Amino acid sequence: MLDIETADRPSVDHDELVGFVTKIFTGRGVPADRAVVAARALVYGDAAGLGSHGLANLTRLYLPLFDARRVAPAADLTVLSDRGPAAVIDAERTLGLWTASAVLDDAAERAARYGVGVCFVRNATHFGCAGFHTRAQALQGRIALLSSNCGGQRIARPPGGRYAMLGTNPLSIAAPAGAADPFVLDMSTTAVPTGKIRVAARRGEPIPEGWLVDAAGSPVTDPAALDRGDGFPVWLGGRPATGAYKGYGLALLVEVLSALVSGAGLGPDAAAFTGSGGPTGRDDDIGYFAMIIDPVALRGDSAVAPAAEAMFAALRECAPIDPDEPVGYPGLREAERVRASLAEGIALDSALWAEVLALARAEGVDAPAGALR
Amino acid sequence: MLDIETADRPSVDHDELVGFVTKIFTGRGVPADRAVVAARALVYGDAAGLGSHGLANLTRLYLPLFDARRVAPAADLTVLSDRGPAAVIDAERTLGLWTASAVLDDAAERAARYGVGVCFVRNATHFGCAGFHTRAQALQGRIALLSSNCGGQRIARPPGGRYAMLGTNPLSIAAPAGAADPFVLDMSTTAVPTGKIRVAARRGEPIPEGWLVDAAGSPVTDPAALDRGDGFPVWLGGRPATGAYKGYGLALLVEVLSALVSGAGLGPDAAAFTGSGGPTGRDDDIGYFAMIIDPVALRGDSAVAPAAEAMFAALRECAPIDPDEPVGYPGLREAERVRASLAEGIALDSALWAEVLALARAEGVDAPAGALR
Repeated sequence: MLDIETADRPSVDHDELVGFVTKIFTGRGVPADRAVVAARALVYGDAAGLGSHGLANLTRLYLPLFDARRVAPAADLTVLSDRGPAAVIDAERTLGLWTASAVLDDAAERAARYGVGVCFVRNATHFGCAGFHTRAQALQGRIALLSSNCGGQRIARPPGGRYAMLGTNPLSIAAPAGAADPFVLDMSTTAVPTGKIRVAARRGEPIPEGWLVDAAGSPVTDPAALDRGDGFPVWLGGRPATGAYKGYGLALLVEVLSALVSGAGLGPDAAAFTGSGGPTGRDDDIGYFAMIIDPVALRGDSAVAPAAEAMFAALRECAPIDPDEPVGYPGLREAERVRASLAEGIALDSALWAEVLALARAEGVDAPAGALR
Repeated sequence: MLDIETADRPSVDHDELVGFVTKIFTGRGVPADRAVVAARALVYGDAAGLGSHGLANLTRLYLPLFDARRVAPAADLTVLSDRGPAAVIDAERTLGLWTASAVLDDAAERAARYGVGVCFVRNATHFGCAGFHTRAQALQGRIALLSSNCGGQRIARPPGGRYAMLGTNPLSIAAPAGAADPFVLDMSTTAVPTGKIRVAARRGEPIPEGWLVDAAGSPVTDPAALDRGDGFPVWLGGRPATGAYKGYGLALLVEVLSALVSGAGLGPDAAAFTGSGGPTGRDDDIGYFAMIIDPVALRGDSAVAPAAEAMFAALRECAPIDPDEPVGYPGLREAERVRASLAEGIALDSALWAEVLALARAEGVDAPAGALR
C-alpha cells in the first residue's frame, strides 16, 4: 500500500473528499443537506484547479469562523422584503459556501415566474468560489450572476489613496453553452485574488509584476508583502492609463449591488483610515447580489439556447495564433480539470494532505480513503 | 467680435449646442422630444471631457446611419415580451442616443413597482456615452446598469485568437451619492474604447503602451494601426497574467446580458473568420441590457440613501498619497467638467468647430451662437 502521508502529490477521490468535508461541517452543526452543498463548493476549488479557494481554506478560513461563532451553522435565512421578483434577505451568518447556492436557487424560483429574479443579501459569510454557485445554475439552463463584497474587510486602496478601502469583491456570471461546457467567469476586481498571492507566499515563490505594488507604486514580487502591509493589491487594469479606474469602478459596482442595496457591511468607511495601507477590518456582514435570468420564462420561447450554443462554438472554433493553444472562454479549462478530477482523483500537495489527515484526527472523523496513485 | 471660425479653442454655450444638435436630429425626422434627449446625450460627451463620444461622432457615426437608413428616427419601440419587472423590447432601429434613456425610464417604472426592473433590447443603435443615460437615473435616486454589445461589429480578438470576435462592449453603472455627485462608471471592456484610439489617430499623436498590440503581441503606439488592421485592441487586464481573461470575460458578460438574451446580433459567429484580425462587421442590431434598482421600492425604507452618501464621502475623504491629487470615484471628474462646461461653455477644438459650422450650412440650420471667449 502506498504511504499516502509521504506521497508527494497524493490523488484523492473527489467524492471521498466531499464526504469528509461534509462530516467536518455536520460535526460543527451544519444540517446535512447544507453541509453537502458546502463541501462540494469547497472541494470544487481543488477539483477545478483553483486551489486558493479550496480545501486549504478549511483550516485557514472556515473552521476559525465556526470557532469564533462568526458562522451560525443552522440559522434560517430571513426574508426582510419580498417584492416578487426581488427580495432582500438576511443570511443570518449561515455558511456562505451553502448560502450562495441557496439564494441563487431562491432567485431561480422567482425567475421562473418573472423571467428575472434577484436576491440582495446581507449578513452573509465567505462563499468560496463564486463560479461553483453560478455554474450549477448554468447547468440547469439559467444565466446566473453572483457578486460579493468583503463586508468590513478592506484589502485594496482606491487609486491615489493611502488606506485600503475595499475588498477584492468577486464577480461571477455563468451561462449555458448548449451541449458544451458553460461559460463561467469568476473574477476578483483586483488583478488577482488575495488567495493566489497567499498561495505563492506559502510556497515561497515570487509573484509576477502587476499583482502588488509598494507605497511608491513600484512592482512588488514578494507575495509576503501583502500581509506585511507593504505590498498593495493592483486593480484590474493595472496603471491608470490602462484601466486602473475600471477595476476600482467594478469593485464599487460590486459594493453597490451586493452590500449597499442589501444593507450589509461596507468597506468604504471612516474606520478604514488607519494602519499602513495594508488590509484592515474583518469580513463579517458580507453582502451578496444574486441574480437569475430564465430565458424561457422571460421570452416565452426557446431561442436563446441554440443561439448560445452557436455563439460559444464560434469562439472555440476561432483559429488560434498558436496551433497548440486553442481559443476558449472562461469556464472551459475549469470544466476540463473537474472532469479529470472526477476520473482520476484530486491531486493535493503533501502539505495539504497532511493537514487533511491531522484535521481528521482532531475532529474525530474518518480520513478520506486512500490515494488513487 | 471674436472670429469664432479661427479661434483656437472656441467655447460654445452648452444649451446652444444642444439646441443645434436637436435641430439637426429633428431635420432628420426624429420627434422633438426624442431629439432633445439625443442631443443632450451627444453633447454630454464634450461637456464631460469624453470627446471620443461627443459631437465628433455626429458626422462620423450618427448622420451616416440616417443617410443609410440604418436608423428609423420615428419608429415606435415594440414590447416583444412583458413579464412585469422584465421585458424584451425591439428598439426598431430608433436612435440609440434616445433609446437607451427611454428603456431605462421604462425599467424605472417597472422598478417602482417591483424593486427591480430590467429591459433586454434588440435591434438598437449606438447609444453614445453609457454614463449619460445611467447618470440621469442616479440623479433621480435610482441605481442604473446599462450595457451594450456592438451588434455584428467585431473589434477585439479573444485571447490567443486570430480573428476579431467581439466589440468593445461598454458597461455602465450609476448610483446616487447623497448630495454629492453620483458614482458613474462608464467603461469599455477593452483597455480603452476605439474612439479614444481614433481621436489620437486624428491628432497624429502616439498612444500609450497597453492599448494596442501587433500580431505577435508586442505593444503598438501608432493609433492608425487599429483601422489598418495591424494593431489589435488589448483587453482590460492587459496580459494573461494580469487579467486579460477578465476583460475578455466581461465582454462576454455584456454580450450575454445585452444581446444573447434579447436576441440581438452577436459578435461571435462564423462570419467573423475573415480578414487580418482587424475590425469586421457592422454595428447593426445592437443589444442592450438596462436595469434599474429602486432602493426605496425594494426595501420599503429609505436607509440606502444615507448609507450611500456616507460610503462615497469616505472615499473622497481618504488621505491621498499625493496631497494635490485627492481620492475620488468614477463620475466625479466628469461632473466637475460638466459644471464647468455649463458655466463657461464647451471648449471645442478648431477642427470640430469648423465641422459644426459646415454642418450648419449643409443642413440649413442656424449655427450655435458665438463663442463665449
